[in-house]
Amino acid sequence: MAGLSVFDDTPMLAVMKYKALNNVFNRDPSPRKLFLGNREYYEDDGQCTVLHVVKKVQRRIINDITLNHEYLPDLGLSEFNRAVTALLLGKDCTAIVERRADSIQVPGGKSALFIGAQFLRKWYNMISPKTARVYVSIPYWEHHASAFFKVGFEVYSYRYWNNDKLCLALPQLLEDLERKNQFPFFYSTAQGLATGDVQRDAWPVRYFVNERFELFCAQSFSKNFTLYSERVGSLTIVTRNNHTLITIRSQIEELARHTWSNPPWIGAHIIATVLNNPAFFTEWQENLKKMAERLMLTKEKLKEELRILGTPGSWEHITKQAGLYIFPGFTGSQINYLMKKLRIYISSDAQINISNVNSQNLAYLASCIHEAVVSSSEDSPVSILNN
Amino acid sequence: MAGLSVFDDTPMLAVMKYKALNNVFNRDPSPRKLFLGNREYYEDDGQCTVLHVVKKVQRRIINDITLNHEYLPDLGLSEFNRAVTALLLGKDCTAIVERRADSIQVPGGKSALFIGAQFLRKWYNMISPKTARVYVSIPYWEHHASAFFKVGFEVYSYRYWNNDKLCLALPQLLEDLERKNQFPFFYSTAQGLATGDVQRDAWPVRYFVNERFELFCAQSFSKNFTLYSERVGSLTIVTRNNHTLITIRSQIEELARHTWSNPPWIGAHIIATVLNNPAFFTEWQENLKKMAERLMLTKEKLKEELRILGTPGSWEHITKQAGLYIFPGFTGSQINYLMKKLRIYISSDAQINISNVNSQNLAYLASCIHEAVVSSSEDSPVSILNN
Repeated sequence: MAGLSVFDDTPMLAVMKYKALNNVFNRDPSPRKLFLGNREYYEDDGQCTVLHVVKKVQRRIINDITLNHEYLPDLGLSEFNRAVTALLLGKDCTAIVERRADSIQVPGGKSALFIGAQFLRKWYNMISPKTARVYVSIPYWEHHASAFFKVGFEVYSYRYWNNDKLCLALPQLLEDLERKNQFPFFYSTAQGLATGDVQRDAWPVRYFVNERFELFCAQSFSKNFTLYSERVGSLTIVTRNNHTLITIRSQIEELARHTWSNPPWIGAHIIATVLNNPAFFTEWQENLKKMAERLMLTKEKLKEELRILGTPGSWEHITKQAGLYIFPGFTGSQINYLMKKLRIYISSDAQINISNVNSQNLAYLASCIHEAVVSSSEDSPVSILNN
Repeated sequence: MAGLSVFDDTPMLAVMKYKALNNVFNRDPSPRKLFLGNREYYEDDGQCTVLHVVKKVQRRIINDITLNHEYLPDLGLSEFNRAVTALLLGKDCTAIVERRADSIQVPGGKSALFIGAQFLRKWYNMISPKTARVYVSIPYWEHHASAFFKVGFEVYSYRYWNNDKLCLALPQLLEDLERKNQFPFFYSTAQGLATGDVQRDAWPVRYFVNERFELFCAQSFSKNFTLYSERVGSLTIVTRNNHTLITIRSQIEELARHTWSNPPWIGAHIIATVLNNPAFFTEWQENLKKMAERLMLTKEKLKEELRILGTPGSWEHITKQAGLYIFPGFTGSQINYLMKKLRIYISSDAQINISNVNSQNLAYLASCIHEAVVSSSEDSPVSILNN
């Protein structure tokens, strides 16, 4: 063989933005640095703790000598698939009763987007224009769009966030989406963490099912079970009839087989155990409620702290947003000031993970925000796209 | 929406051969039925038991309150990647010392084939003909080939098994492979289970590295760690220099990110713990040796039993084959007789998983083979391709 590598023409890819930000943060020697862009839920003590009910089930598994580690079927653990379908759609959902809704276990929510996109590119096309288009919400579209882009979709965006008024951009949302005869593909990444109630959080998907839509929903169980590294997701499918459901499953089984063969067991087993055991399920709901309440309380405290400091502007939008991530509405120069001067790290979509704010850093963070707001003259909010 | 499904034109895919065989076996009411086509290693008691050293590490994990379940980096756990590179190549390997060898953790061996194939289709092509070709060993090629076929390779086969003489088909192997200027892509699925010695089993890959080849090796840790459902694999990469290695990693990181985002943690953590702890590593090697010895002893016993029964033909080839799977050399009519008349299930590649043979069923299986051989008139071995 020659002395040259057979890969000499391969270009180096740049480190992705999120990882680059994390690298800079890790190298930053400042003792007061703060990272507000984590992807996990952190407790008030700054730890990414495993839920109590999950820990309990883990102990059971270790002590259960009847359990082994044989391969799962390619479409995953059937009791998991049944349980997460019922979790999303409600256990009395007509689509479940009529056997036209089911889930396929995959290694994480992103895998569900990937395999769903692959399937749709091939088979939804039969009745749609030759050029496959997908509309992805913006901001956030880069993260969601890659799975579709990589399998050959043309990626378009739709608006949902009004960056001036810091609220839902309803007219723009409707303008971008109406009359396009689209197939709905939801991404449910933290059911239960928005309102603290898994039933209420599932409303949008259930509404579409009630309206007789066929749909896909990628589900991730990383955040609501604190099982990030176990890679548990599902592609939940609602179709017109049982025959179509079985057909889609047969196609996706083949896609899964040549991609990852079969999904990992332990996380799915833990989740199925929690969802199918009434006592564990109740305990899990209480765990979730506590997490959601902590997030809301943190937002309240942050808003109150800014009020006490007399920080210019209204901060009502902080408590009006549900869930783990919020748009704090900082302007570009405010973010710049926070990042460069005060070492408060905010990810490129200009959202912050509110669980990164806790009793130890809340007052300090509020004082930093105050300083950034009064020191910055620019008054238009940051353009999320150019960030 | 119309009453019709948007997926009405989607065709149903047939159930794959392996699963179909398993379904028939499960429905078979015969009390003496035997399945010889499992994909896992079974102990003499017929159980797919977790290795003792693995169980021990699992207990440690549960009791370690400092461990949480945050996402792994997209390329996996770095201590796992380092450890499995050293396991395959030997810890003093020049390529490791020169920082031009590393591994990427993926969810199982098949994922390593898939992502490696994707990368090669795009970048190895720069110096090879426009039409990408892959040569996959036959028998077994269907299973290995799908990952390549799906990303656009033309799949060709090379021979390695002489089905008449029941031994390695060396002249045919050389004829099929020589002078093709190929890039070597190994698939190491059970290092240690062939000879009982992980160092000896790694000889072929190490030979190529010593000969200064650049290469990929998909590694699966399902069988040698009895962690099938944990989905632990790696794509091990040996290149010409450190820069090329980093470039390839940057490209594969992007492929991983849009496919499964990041791999599952627990199995990789267990394996890294075993490989990096001298006491655990010694215990694991003893576990593997015992497994390999059981496989060899079972082959000896089966051969001896056939000798005692006076079964026509030589059965020397049984003990000449190493590892979990062997070609027993049955003819088509013998397989037919075993399957249809005696309910002994053999997978379509005509290999048997020798760990499915144990103290409880060995004498019975030998008597069945004897019956099939004396009852069958055909004397040419089964054509594996038409099976």
